[in-house]
Amino acid sequence: FQNLKDKAAKLGKKLKKIGKDDPRRILHSFKAGLAISLISIFYYVNPLFTSLGSSSTMWAVLTVVVVMEFTAGGTLSKGINRTFATLLAGALGLAAQRLAALSSHSAGEPILLSVFVFLLAAMATFSRFVPEIKARYDYGVTIFILTFSMVAVSGYREEELIKLALQRLSTIAIGVATCVAISIFVFPVWAGEDLHNLLPANIDKLACFLEGLEREYFGEKMGSGQILEEASFLISTYKPVLNSKPTEDLLANFARWEPGHGCFGFCHPWKLYLKVGALTRQCAYSMEAISSHISTNKNSKVITDTEFREMIRIACAEMSSKTGKALAELATAIRQMRTPSTAAAQHLSNATTASESLKTLSPAKDASLPEILQSAT
Amino acid sequence: FQNLKDKAAKLGKKLKKIGKDDPRRILHSFKAGLAISLISIFYYVNPLFTSLGSSSTMWAVLTVVVVMEFTAGGTLSKGINRTFATLLAGALGLAAQRLAALSSHSAGEPILLSVFVFLLAAMATFSRFVPEIKARYDYGVTIFILTFSMVAVSGYREEELIKLALQRLSTIAIGVATCVAISIFVFPVWAGEDLHNLLPANIDKLACFLEGLEREYFGEKMGSGQILEEASFLISTYKPVLNSKPTEDLLANFARWEPGHGCFGFCHPWKLYLKVGALTRQCAYSMEAISSHISTNKNSKVITDTEFREMIRIACAEMSSKTGKALAELATAIRQMRTPSTAAAQHLSNATTASESLKTLSPAKDASLPEILQSAT
Repeated sequence: FQNLKDKAAKLGKKLKKIGKDDPRRILHSFKAGLAISLISIFYYVNPLFTSLGSSSTMWAVLTVVVVMEFTAGGTLSKGINRTFATLLAGALGLAAQRLAALSSHSAGEPILLSVFVFLLAAMATFSRFVPEIKARYDYGVTIFILTFSMVAVSGYREEELIKLALQRLSTIAIGVATCVAISIFVFPVWAGEDLHNLLPANIDKLACFLEGLEREYFGEKMGSGQILEEASFLISTYKPVLNSKPTEDLLANFARWEPGHGCFGFCHPWKLYLKVGALTRQCAYSMEAISSHISTNKNSKVITDTEFREMIRIACAEMSSKTGKALAELATAIRQMRTPSTAAAQHLSNATTASESLKTLSPAKDASLPEILQSAT
Repeated sequence: FQNLKDKAAKLGKKLKKIGKDDPRRILHSFKAGLAISLISIFYYVNPLFTSLGSSSTMWAVLTVVVVMEFTAGGTLSKGINRTFATLLAGALGLAAQRLAALSSHSAGEPILLSVFVFLLAAMATFSRFVPEIKARYDYGVTIFILTFSMVAVSGYREEELIKLALQRLSTIAIGVATCVAISIFVFPVWAGEDLHNLLPANIDKLACFLEGLEREYFGEKMGSGQILEEASFLISTYKPVLNSKPTEDLLANFARWEPGHGCFGFCHPWKLYLKVGALTRQCAYSMEAISSHISTNKNSKVITDTEFREMIRIACAEMSSKTGKALAELATAIRQMRTPSTAAAQHLSNATTASESLKTLSPAKDASLPEILQSAT
């Protein structure tokens, strides 16, 4: 029993941490609850219910549950996908149904319908393997298959197919509109803003690593115990950057669906963010190489030529500190959406000078920095 | 018009390539079409249709469209999630409905129901931010919210709620069973097998890069034009490995749901694969550092001390070739599920010897190799 209590306490702490890390998560949960409660009003109010029909009202609830996403861009992307896929598939399904009904034989209709459904489902499923469709319209394709099969197949039984289709379309539209309105007007979470904050935060992490490297590894105090501790802290600073690609891709994909807001226009160049992100990752890869070099040396306890080491120590410290400063400056520039100041270039040229004499030691440390500078402007 | 024709030809070529790259994709499309056609038989056959009811039959179609995934593990994971979430949410929804019906005031019932729906939807939405739930049960939570709201809300109108819930559950079970049967018995695509093949393929790519590096960059022929061309080819060999984490995580997640098949037991240690994958990526990061070092040197046209270069050239060539061979040997060992042969260890120790003299040049190249060796056994 005590064991269970401990576990519950642990879980509670974890949930609290998740909420504290990003309070918008709690807000989002309330928004989702609000959207579903709002849509369920259709059930309780008599005139609304009778005008839409019982089974159609279900579809409004279903739409809200599936479409509501954390970011406004995500909700918009899913909502637009759902609406257009339903429209297109509904029209095609009606056409297929009419075509099959022309068949003279009584067994002809279900067979023809099955063939249509089979062909369209197979083709649509295959189209999901195209990377561009997978990235932006995957949900739309699912809905397309679903609606087409339903309309085509249920046409065999239902009499008033067109009325049914229109009812369903209107409930889906109501569901999508509710979700979109709530996610845009009630404490909106913009994917674009998240992306805009994520990049400089990542660059700052790299800067923090380099400056820490200067202080701890190349710096004055080389006490062994402390280094080990600090090193593991340092590593944790840049590690998340290595695998930032999926998050960035997702955010950029959602950001493209968002209307203009704040200082971002509708055609804000989100693709450039992906480029800067890729360069940031390249920097992080080099840091991974450096830190694994350091840890190998530590483990194998190879005491290299100490004189040589002392000789390069100062230059290395200079280089990583300057590069770190240049990166921090870059991060600020991206945040404020301006061209990086000359200070960054100054830091960078200092770093380059220091690295000239060190070419052989830390090969790629600042290889990609000039590129970041270029594409950030 | 010509423009349109060109575009169509291009699209056709692209689709053909996608199919050729992995013929199982075409098979999967047919399987999806087959599953939907099979389920639509429920509509055409009179006794089946009347026993299940009109709106419930819809749910079978919906289930098949949503649950059918490329890998058997994916289908199983979604199907199991869907079934259990429906069961749990249905029971809770019924309980909430009964509780609300106890209210004496006539307006009390809808208000109580709204409060229940709001609270449960908000809590379930929040639980999706827990990483463990997000990774394995995200789909289940969606279905849970959906079913709970539907059952609780529609109880306000429907008379025979329990009969309806049972009908729906049985159609969902039929849909899930169809999907699972088709994806396990008709040309199954196992996520576990894919993962088992992906890892050695990735390691082979790294080996290929290192051996190419030895041949082209450190090798005899240093013609400038050719190097540039080869270098871009070389880079393309390991680039995909850098971002392999999401794919591996997904496959490992699905593989855990799969029953034993071929030489994989039910409790095959899929987590170890993730570890080896992480080490492989670490190797790839080092290669990224090396190749960006090379390209920087090329762009800045710094002609470094040629004598020194000649001196280290041979040792470098030796090192990267041996490391490459060790990696290739490792890949074969993983494929055949055996301990790497001593040949790999031999290659590795050769490489280490060569690298001893070169510590300063290519810092982390084989830092993580011994770890790979360890965890592969």
